[in-house]
Amino acid sequence: MPDNRPIGVFDSGIGGMTVVKSIVENMPGEHIIYFGDTARVPYGTKSKRQITEFALSDVKFLNAFDVKAVVIACNTADSTAREAIEEAFPDLPVFGVVDPASRMAAETTVNGKIGVIATNATVSTGAYERVITAYNPEATVFMKACPLLVPLVENGRIRTGDPVIETVLKEYLDPLVEEGIDTLVLGCTHYPLLFDTIEYLYPELRIISSSDAAAAKVLGDLIRKDACSENTEAAGSERKYFVSDDAAGVDKLARVFMGEDLGGTFEQVNIESY
Amino acid sequence: MPDNRPIGVFDSGIGGMTVVKSIVENMPGEHIIYFGDTARVPYGTKSKRQITEFALSDVKFLNAFDVKAVVIACNTADSTAREAIEEAFPDLPVFGVVDPASRMAAETTVNGKIGVIATNATVSTGAYERVITAYNPEATVFMKACPLLVPLVENGRIRTGDPVIETVLKEYLDPLVEEGIDTLVLGCTHYPLLFDTIEYLYPELRIISSSDAAAAKVLGDLIRKDACSENTEAAGSERKYFVSDDAAGVDKLARVFMGEDLGGTFEQVNIESY
Repeated sequence: MPDNRPIGVFDSGIGGMTVVKSIVENMPGEHIIYFGDTARVPYGTKSKRQITEFALSDVKFLNAFDVKAVVIACNTADSTAREAIEEAFPDLPVFGVVDPASRMAAETTVNGKIGVIATNATVSTGAYERVITAYNPEATVFMKACPLLVPLVENGRIRTGDPVIETVLKEYLDPLVEEGIDTLVLGCTHYPLLFDTIEYLYPELRIISSSDAAAAKVLGDLIRKDACSENTEAAGSERKYFVSDDAAGVDKLARVFMGEDLGGTFEQVNIESY
Repeated sequence: MPDNRPIGVFDSGIGGMTVVKSIVENMPGEHIIYFGDTARVPYGTKSKRQITEFALSDVKFLNAFDVKAVVIACNTADSTAREAIEEAFPDLPVFGVVDPASRMAAETTVNGKIGVIATNATVSTGAYERVITAYNPEATVFMKACPLLVPLVENGRIRTGDPVIETVLKEYLDPLVEEGIDTLVLGCTHYPLLFDTIEYLYPELRIISSSDAAAAKVLGDLIRKDACSENTEAAGSERKYFVSDDAAGVDKLARVFMGEDLGGTFEQVNIESY
């Protein structure tokens, strides 16, 4: 039976908009509630305890909108706080980014060597190694923490030919390529914006966006359960965007991640009351 | 009369350790309580309301140690929340970074053209223009927000010859140099680590570290009031360092800012209870 309730999506910041973009490209009629925790961003450099506490309040906020599913559009929160969220919200379908991207990588690799780039916190959880090798026990996973990529992307350093982003990307990726990887997972929702530059620098790699993988997973699940929205057009969809710090200027950054049309505006919410 | 109480120093993160370094180099015997708000870092990208709330809880924490003075070792917090802090703690001598650095710049410039580099939040307050022109009404101040410098410094990109830091520095500083500045204020406590590279790229500039200026100001005030510690040796000084997120690994980053000898260890504190 069609389900017209919105899909909830959250991230520590605005990077999760790459998941919204992918949902909207595939099912433009779905209603969406987005929350970006811009007052407490970034999660990627913080501790498990702190990230879990933040993520639980984020889901509590989204759940107040009677969402039909929640997407953890943040590799750090997904790999750190997933179990705590599922325990705290047992009736809510919760989707992440790590599982769908891991499965896609496990199925994509030919030589079994998979590289994953992510934040420090995501790398330190070991989640990608665990999930990828569960899907493909023959796989070898090479993890690389790339703490400079989020600030570089947020400052628009995403263009092929920019010596700053190319130097940093090569320092991070050359060691993985030297290990012989044939597949690279972009294990942070900011990284899809670097897809073209990485593809240019390493044309031989198969690149998997965790944002696209997550969107494909949640939409596939809605189709299987016949729980899509009756509305199928972007024009009829309601998209509400929230951030925990000032909303001024966020639209501009969000459009970088989303493409031109957000289909909604950003409002501020006090997340510490959740 | 000598005052053996500690000096309290806080920052949104570990950058404020450059102020501690400067205090310790000049008065090694002073006892120090440091707080770095690593669970809520960075402040520089957040709103005035949010930064003020954070800064007030930081001072409340330090004040619990019966400090004889508080140094706001964070240009963002100083330029945003200074008045709110002085109002909330009327009996506590509060020192910042903006005023001493502004005064030093106003007195140093020969041609009256001063550049200031800082975070987005510090720039948007207009504090440096206001204070510098109060000291030197003839001065023209050129502000430049440099959002990539903090993550680059924290990732160790501080070496002369690194194309990443040099490219980014030139993009930020060339426009200021083209305006004809003869004096540059490093308006963020992370930036003293870039002193040598900036000096190498722009040998003609007079460079002013807001961290050194702040330390000089608070120590000068203690001397004037005869309120220095009786202890004058580093060996006899007590230094307590606190952070709001996990303390593991913080020592390593702190030593980058401080030089080798911290003279103490980091402990975690739950700042949200203050």
